[in-house]
Amino acid sequence: MRNAADRDRFYMNLALSEAGKAADAGEVPVGAVLVCDGEAIALAHNRREELQNPVAHAEALALQAASFHLKSWRLEDCSLYVTLEPCVMCVGAILQARIARLVFGCLDPKAGAVESLYRLCEDSRLNHTLPVTRGVLENECSSILSEFFRHLREGNRVVKRAERWPSPVEGA
Amino acid sequence: MRNAADRDRFYMNLALSEAGKAADAGEVPVGAVLVCDGEAIALAHNRREELQNPVAHAEALALQAASFHLKSWRLEDCSLYVTLEPCVMCVGAILQARIARLVFGCLDPKAGAVESLYRLCEDSRLNHTLPVTRGVLENECSSILSEFFRHLREGNRVVKRAERWPSPVEGA
Repeated sequence: MRNAADRDRFYMNLALSEAGKAADAGEVPVGAVLVCDGEAIALAHNRREELQNPVAHAEALALQAASFHLKSWRLEDCSLYVTLEPCVMCVGAILQARIARLVFGCLDPKAGAVESLYRLCEDSRLNHTLPVTRGVLENECSSILSEFFRHLREGNRVVKRAERWPSPVEGA
Repeated sequence: MRNAADRDRFYMNLALSEAGKAADAGEVPVGAVLVCDGEAIALAHNRREELQNPVAHAEALALQAASFHLKSWRLEDCSLYVTLEPCVMCVGAILQARIARLVFGCLDPKAGAVESLYRLCEDSRLNHTLPVTRGVLENECSSILSEFFRHLREGNRVVKRAERWPSPVEGA
């Protein structure tokens, strides 16, 4: 790859394909990739519903997979790529793992803890701070989410209509 | 048990015995208990070093064990007891799991995200808020940590001395 921006897009595309797997499984489509020395050592997508686990966000799963792979909770040489701005829990996990750099796609105005609601990655009182790059493949990262929620709303609307006007068979 | 304060002390004692297991294993001694309908459904202690997992704090492990037990990421009827004020990651996990009530023992001035550095449990912009009780068995919860770090410092001091003044055998 020619330069750092190309590399960021390459890894964010990997994260996007992980987000696609989440969408296919009916999960909020967020994907994450952990990169160490130029190698993607962990790929993960949101699996909260599948695993019924409140911690099973893409980032937390990627961090844990990378730690398992490297046999260390310290991931000081690793960068995390994630399609959506991480929440409080996931930024906390990123800080715990001492991640070197965070790259994310689009903002999460309702829950983001990097820029939107808090700026946790730059709080020098915490045990770690790290540089952040945002907006890599922003439109693609945002679109996969808005498409997912549009389908969900349309699906819900159909269900509500069916509840309101029972089919001739059900209403007979 | 006679009243709510007795119950809180009872469950915090369980959390303290979990913290003791962490200390015995050389981990920072923090313990957590998840209580649902008066029953302790999950007990956990910090296992970060043992598992080499940055997410393996007592609270995160207890939440996940409870979710596995109840087959649900939503723990809306559960209270979490933890010996030390939770960090950013763990408060984030508590909010993700929609925990009904948090009880903790002593403050963590360097990393606590309930009162010390942030007040994340009462931020109405986030997806969940919850009542917090602090100071239950505060001295015991604090003592087990200060004892642990005192032993660690003494151990480290011995190591440093040995490095500085090699034993006659090593220095020969």
